[in-house]
Amino acid sequence: MSNEFLKHIKWNSDGLVAAIAQDASSGRVLMMAWMNAESLQISVDTGDAVYWSRSRAKLWRKGESSGNVQKIRAIELDCDGDALLLQVEQLGGIACHTGRQSCFYRRLSTGDWQTTEAVLKDPATMYQHVDKT
Amino acid sequence: MSNEFLKHIKWNSDGLVAAIAQDASSGRVLMMAWMNAESLQISVDTGDAVYWSRSRAKLWRKGESSGNVQKIRAIELDCDGDALLLQVEQLGGIACHTGRQSCFYRRLSTGDWQTTEAVLKDPATMYQHVDKT
Repeated sequence: MSNEFLKHIKWNSDGLVAAIAQDASSGRVLMMAWMNAESLQISVDTGDAVYWSRSRAKLWRKGESSGNVQKIRAIELDCDGDALLLQVEQLGGIACHTGRQSCFYRRLSTGDWQTTEAVLKDPATMYQHVDKT
Repeated sequence: MSNEFLKHIKWNSDGLVAAIAQDASSGRVLMMAWMNAESLQISVDTGDAVYWSRSRAKLWRKGESSGNVQKIRAIELDCDGDALLLQVEQLGGIACHTGRQSCFYRRLSTGDWQTTEAVLKDPATMYQHVDKT
């Protein structure tokens, strides 16, 4: 596929663009991560979400260890060109490395963050050799 | 209100945290912007979304010129503490400075970005003295 689309993205000083993953069926926002050009190109080519892990400084093939792969249904770009919105099918129903559906499981209430979502799966059973996918 | 919640946020090197605004009713992701501690505190205190404009290097009171204020229904924090998700009521039904409901109005198709959403309101009629709100 042509990579003309990469030229319209406003990469930050680290060569990254923010990528929001939204459940294409429920509309729930699952997570926000980052992509570089290579990870976006691979995501487009394969249909599976691949991010750039800033903490590990390497490609992060979402779900490669946990199996919680994100199948991409659509990719949208914002007006400024510096944020992507991925409409995904979240395999396994778990996006967060804590074992929850969404990474946004804490809600501000009475001055602090309150956990609003239970762990669906023990992270210890999700991973074998990596800390986070 | 206590500002204990600010301590749990992992601010980036510029003192900012990513903030995603989602329509609390429809689930549509409207935009992604940035907040510093002051803008988040004001947002919490007033209930109206206030961002930090990186391009203008000042507080960005969303809708102050266009009237398209975002009424905050909930604020959620992700597992890493470096992204916020705002559930909002978008007054005027327009979040984007281009006059569209959402800033994510371009979709990747056949190798390039295709505009998938019409302008609802001419930006020239939305603003008077600023380029963007």
